[in-house]
Amino acid sequence: MKIIPGGVTAPKGFEAAGVEAAIKYENRKDMAILYSEKPCVAAGTFTSNVVKAAPVKWDKKLCEESPFVQALVVNTGIANAGTGEDGMKCCLDTAKEAAALLSLPESAVLVGSTGVIGPLLPMDRIKAGIRKLVKSKAHTPEAGSDAAAAIMTTDTHPKEFAVEIAIGGKPVRIGAMSKGSGMIHPNMCTMLSYVVTDAVISKEALTALVKEDVLDTYNMISVDGDTSTNDTFLVLANGMAENPEILPGTPDYEVFRKALFAVNEHQAKALAGDGEGAKALIECVVMNADTKEHARTLARSVISSSLTKAAVFGHDANWGRILCALGYSGAPFDPEKMELSYEGGGKKILIYRDGRGVAFDEEKASAILSLPEVRILADMKCGIETATAWGCDLTYDYVRINGDYRS
Amino acid sequence: MKIIPGGVTAPKGFEAAGVEAAIKYENRKDMAILYSEKPCVAAGTFTSNVVKAAPVKWDKKLCEESPFVQALVVNTGIANAGTGEDGMKCCLDTAKEAAALLSLPESAVLVGSTGVIGPLLPMDRIKAGIRKLVKSKAHTPEAGSDAAAAIMTTDTHPKEFAVEIAIGGKPVRIGAMSKGSGMIHPNMCTMLSYVVTDAVISKEALTALVKEDVLDTYNMISVDGDTSTNDTFLVLANGMAENPEILPGTPDYEVFRKALFAVNEHQAKALAGDGEGAKALIECVVMNADTKEHARTLARSVISSSLTKAAVFGHDANWGRILCALGYSGAPFDPEKMELSYEGGGKKILIYRDGRGVAFDEEKASAILSLPEVRILADMKCGIETATAWGCDLTYDYVRINGDYRS
Repeated sequence: MKIIPGGVTAPKGFEAAGVEAAIKYENRKDMAILYSEKPCVAAGTFTSNVVKAAPVKWDKKLCEESPFVQALVVNTGIANAGTGEDGMKCCLDTAKEAAALLSLPESAVLVGSTGVIGPLLPMDRIKAGIRKLVKSKAHTPEAGSDAAAAIMTTDTHPKEFAVEIAIGGKPVRIGAMSKGSGMIHPNMCTMLSYVVTDAVISKEALTALVKEDVLDTYNMISVDGDTSTNDTFLVLANGMAENPEILPGTPDYEVFRKALFAVNEHQAKALAGDGEGAKALIECVVMNADTKEHARTLARSVISSSLTKAAVFGHDANWGRILCALGYSGAPFDPEKMELSYEGGGKKILIYRDGRGVAFDEEKASAILSLPEVRILADMKCGIETATAWGCDLTYDYVRINGDYRS
Repeated sequence: MKIIPGGVTAPKGFEAAGVEAAIKYENRKDMAILYSEKPCVAAGTFTSNVVKAAPVKWDKKLCEESPFVQALVVNTGIANAGTGEDGMKCCLDTAKEAAALLSLPESAVLVGSTGVIGPLLPMDRIKAGIRKLVKSKAHTPEAGSDAAAAIMTTDTHPKEFAVEIAIGGKPVRIGAMSKGSGMIHPNMCTMLSYVVTDAVISKEALTALVKEDVLDTYNMISVDGDTSTNDTFLVLANGMAENPEILPGTPDYEVFRKALFAVNEHQAKALAGDGEGAKALIECVVMNADTKEHARTLARSVISSSLTKAAVFGHDANWGRILCALGYSGAPFDPEKMELSYEGGGKKILIYRDGRGVAFDEEKASAILSLPEVRILADMKCGIETATAWGCDLTYDYVRINGDYRS
């Protein structure tokens, strides 16, 4: 597997665009399109929130029922959530407009929204945006970057990534664009993550991979503990790489599985590290837990802890907060047996063992906690399962951004 | 039931004191004692955290096994958590010192600690503090206030409360002192809450009441989602009111139950409103839920939501965040049927109904959200169960306080 430049336009046959449509703010790109020359199989997972945004309901139905999809239209600024039947009508009208211009059935057009909950989409501006998007879409790296920029809300930078693998001698590419960065929490986050590939793979195989991947990637990040109404993770495959079909149980499947996981892990980490107001990425690795699910629960609890996050912001080696967060996670373990360490910049400091703190150099620990990537290692010593979760520090900027989000 | 002045020294026979013992900081009261002339029955509930502080283990054992208790020694600054066997030895030595001076068995001395996790208690200073406490303890309102002040950490004011009821013609008093204000989250919080009464009541009846009360009082508050290693809620009854014994199933029991609940509800609200950095108390009332447990889950989810808390701080009527928090709580409901309102200062504004936002006056809503007590009403319209939870806004000061807690 090699990392290649670009994002969603890296795989064959995918075009993209990002334009200014004045949905909520002036002078910023706020609508994106993704289009495939050929029909795609699609797989997705969506928010577990009882309150599901209209575009989530629309996409879920298409993933389940539509024989193929070929385009995706996304807007930022307004989430189209908490909008009832009117919101569903907005999805339909968005898909209809794009379908007419692209000569597709409306059931081939996915939609996505992120932003404030409550208001209805301004459909005149959405439709005008779609016309601009269809006109400007292109199979170029620039067009991919424009789309990645257009789906941002409070993100500080676009998040694209692409890799290439070989399947049956044919190059197969996977490209992604994703956005955070508030309402980010395990169980799908607004988090929108769109992954495309030119691989030949069945819908069933792709669906299985999406379900597997999400457990250890997007569901292992948290910015603020708030699970959004709009979380969406979609993978589209258009088959244009003309590789022999990727079948479960084959070595090719393993190659593709690892590449897709690498793309999703990369995007998940990028979302966590660019959480609202974040100055540092916090990675918690839980080792030697008794079960995989407990390992995940423990790791997620640490990176979700407000006190742990604030301590990292303060570069304060206050490990008691980590121990505390492990303790209230709901996963059982023996506090007398486990070990805790900080790791960063190639250095590792043991901080807790045998039920109590270990004497350590506070300055060295503070230096590690000042790095842009801080790793917390928890060795539970009660099994062989491992999990990793990603979060970010809690800063003044998080409060500033969210104390006045709508203005 | 009438509210009376004072706190833990309001009931007959209870003495208290608070002194400076230089456990961690200079020039502040950091040790407290509570002493009863007569032996008490005790009931308590403690943190659900897997990592339990030594004093929690000590008190739990005493509540379960000791025939009576008669004193409580509390220190702040150091939590005596994550301290292994050495930490248990500190509890024993603390109890021994107090027991010797008070002519009690060590099994009659409860202990409590709150502060930073990790360090061992400085036993010389603890013992010196106990000697000062025993010398200065008194059955006066001032002594009660000194104790309530001494158990504070980042609290901005002491939290005491007392009420009087009549049982069989005898006045019975209940008094309390409590502290927050970080690591506060459902499932017992560091939160220490000590309640004393001169009522004649059996240990069994008291234990049942404690278990019942905690569900709708201390377990319904959250400051930051972090469940502490040290959470403790204790009730001591010394019987000195000489009332006819309060027996379950009698009208007297109901009177006492309501009074005890009122004390605990008052203290829980006071803890939430004085959360670290808080400028406002947020109360979420969930009405007409299908089950009591769902009502509690929904209410807790709203007051625990970082985004909802930040929106209250910004006086921003961003109700989508409330809807979102209800949606990810884990409790089922129909978003199309429920209603949301803000309430405060005698005014109520409907903000969400029939699956979408209701047009409302943003200025009026913002005025309500600027009050020191903000109420969010969620009418689930799917049953008859109600629950209330309390939290506080998320402010710059929360980040400041926790970004550098240990210094």
